[in-house]
Amino acid sequence: MPHISEKGRQMPSSPVRKLVPYAEAAKDRGINIYQLNIGQPDIKTPTHALEAVKNTTMDVLEYSHSAGNQSYREKLIMHYNKIDMDLSIDDIIVSTGGSEALMFAMGSICDYGDEVIIPEPFYANYNGFATASGVTVKPITTTIENNFALPPVSEFEKLITDKTKAILICNPGNPTGYLYTQEEMDQLTALVIKHDLFLVADEVYREFAYDGREHFSVMNQAGLEQHAIMIDSVSKRYSMCGARIGCVVSKNKEVIAAAMKFAQARLSPPTFAQIAAEAALDTPQEYFDEVIEEYIARRDLLISSLKSIEGVKVANPGGAFYCVAELPVENSDDFAQWLLESFEYEGETIMVAPAAGFYSSPGMGNNQIRIAYVLEKESLKRAVVILEKALKAYNA
Amino acid sequence: MPHISEKGRQMPSSPVRKLVPYAEAAKDRGINIYQLNIGQPDIKTPTHALEAVKNTTMDVLEYSHSAGNQSYREKLIMHYNKIDMDLSIDDIIVSTGGSEALMFAMGSICDYGDEVIIPEPFYANYNGFATASGVTVKPITTTIENNFALPPVSEFEKLITDKTKAILICNPGNPTGYLYTQEEMDQLTALVIKHDLFLVADEVYREFAYDGREHFSVMNQAGLEQHAIMIDSVSKRYSMCGARIGCVVSKNKEVIAAAMKFAQARLSPPTFAQIAAEAALDTPQEYFDEVIEEYIARRDLLISSLKSIEGVKVANPGGAFYCVAELPVENSDDFAQWLLESFEYEGETIMVAPAAGFYSSPGMGNNQIRIAYVLEKESLKRAVVILEKALKAYNA
Repeated sequence: MPHISEKGRQMPSSPVRKLVPYAEAAKDRGINIYQLNIGQPDIKTPTHALEAVKNTTMDVLEYSHSAGNQSYREKLIMHYNKIDMDLSIDDIIVSTGGSEALMFAMGSICDYGDEVIIPEPFYANYNGFATASGVTVKPITTTIENNFALPPVSEFEKLITDKTKAILICNPGNPTGYLYTQEEMDQLTALVIKHDLFLVADEVYREFAYDGREHFSVMNQAGLEQHAIMIDSVSKRYSMCGARIGCVVSKNKEVIAAAMKFAQARLSPPTFAQIAAEAALDTPQEYFDEVIEEYIARRDLLISSLKSIEGVKVANPGGAFYCVAELPVENSDDFAQWLLESFEYEGETIMVAPAAGFYSSPGMGNNQIRIAYVLEKESLKRAVVILEKALKAYNA
Repeated sequence: MPHISEKGRQMPSSPVRKLVPYAEAAKDRGINIYQLNIGQPDIKTPTHALEAVKNTTMDVLEYSHSAGNQSYREKLIMHYNKIDMDLSIDDIIVSTGGSEALMFAMGSICDYGDEVIIPEPFYANYNGFATASGVTVKPITTTIENNFALPPVSEFEKLITDKTKAILICNPGNPTGYLYTQEEMDQLTALVIKHDLFLVADEVYREFAYDGREHFSVMNQAGLEQHAIMIDSVSKRYSMCGARIGCVVSKNKEVIAAAMKFAQARLSPPTFAQIAAEAALDTPQEYFDEVIEEYIARRDLLISSLKSIEGVKVANPGGAFYCVAELPVENSDDFAQWLLESFEYEGETIMVAPAAGFYSSPGMGNNQIRIAYVLEKESLKRAVVILEKALKAYNA
């Protein structure tokens, strides 16, 4: 019998994958589960985006252009120009989700064995994309004590070798919610220019910047034109995770030409979803104002109530809709499983993402979890009560 | 300035990519172009598949399961069971097009530097997926003289090394239209069992088998359960190329478990498109009967009229909707460009795919083109007249 590849063996599983059967069993026992474990927002998709798909009148569901429909790319440019990015249609390739954009970027700039430095904890699937691309992740650890701020440049420089091709950031960050400051962006800019690296920025949570703070895009850093690659997606912006539309953006023509060859190999991004994504660009500012107000309220409620639990430590996220919390447990993997397998409070429990999967350094994050505040406030409040009861029971 | 990867440099361009600007310029000059160069059928998508999307009533466009919607996978199983494949829901992962299914399969069974044997000419994007995955393609040449039939097993054995992980076939074949016989499938079966390899079969044109001949699937070969990986797609079957829905199918649990990790990393296949694909499974047999009748009529017309042109050699395709023709020209790349740049017949010309891009062996296919018979008969007839006039003018 032939066997799978080492790559297939090494591909990481999702941090919550092994919890799924326990969650299903709990549901079968009639237990209500508050799902804090995934980044699937409960926010409604803008109606006009869904309607645009319903109003299509095509006879043949054809391939689109490999770089995405021209009409969509043109409108995307106008969208980006509004946030002061000086882009043209040739700087953009529409992808099947931010996931594919990242795969295109990694393939375009990294060969087998090349290294990418990523501040950890980071979006767990970066590990998957790196493994799939034969790229080695070099993590640089950020800490809850320091609110997950960027480590000093000297720490990055310790990691740079002749195999290093890029620094990859997520801004604001999943799972930390960390929003980079202008000063941090300037430090990264100087660093990648000095060492001739790419700076890849996953900015899919760009609009979710709170407390009046500004988001600083990699595309707006002066002098970074040939180094900057932006990853974007409609998934969170318009609560359209199921569309699977993102894009890779760069003013570096070599990068776009290479990414285009990856794009041509897979023919085109999905047609219906591009129609929805194009319409979504007409979403009025009020939609975001409401959504952001809602997320801020959820965050404030979540963070303050988490802080009130004895032994729980939490950073204050400046963006996105996640937070990392440190719990008074030894192993959050075991705890997350126990929550589903052996615990209930008044017929309810919670599902959380153990944080170890968001680190690449072994042994890190073992007492941390990621909480996605994608539930409405009453549910969130109840979920924290359940967490508190659970921690007491677990440690008793 | 940082530079792209070797991989990015080596990614092949689409065989027709460099023709596109010439085609655009020709259109700008008012010339009508018959596009024989791409596999985008003109056949109508089943109305009920498009309607299913229009009838959706979701509020939030959510991620689906990483392996695809359960309802779709269940219906797919029933579809496959009807053609005697003994499959369960756990043997299938829904992918974003057949393209992603191939990427998942390659990643799951091949490491960097591993080899896959592919009869050439083959679907050009196999080169792209191989490059992206760090896999080396070992081509085994089939010839127009022999109607692109499978080379003897002894020829395959010459290519097998300890790096060989799989044989990849496309059945019926793009670009040849070749339909494998039961005897050939049995030979391949014995070969992969003997050498402990995977047999990956791209069967996206399965329904398009002509002249009353049967399609023999890799999934129906006795003894091949642990070796067989099927790649499938809705693109051609239901003329839904823009949906981007395919699947990878195997009874080898290791393979599916590995492919599932690739699937989880990219989260999910597109939601709207899965709804269309699920509805498409209800397409009545009459739809296929009509479509196949149409393709047979087109093929017969195309092949007989090509054969009537002096110096043109063509194999007789048993399936799919492509044929490879050998032309009395030295370089079909130059000829294809000349057709768009310098030729017209009564204000019209044709666009064809030079065949060199469908070979991996250097220097092969230089006097061949691929013709996709995705135009209705009158256009096809006219296109062949133009080809004949063009060849005369080109060789004058």
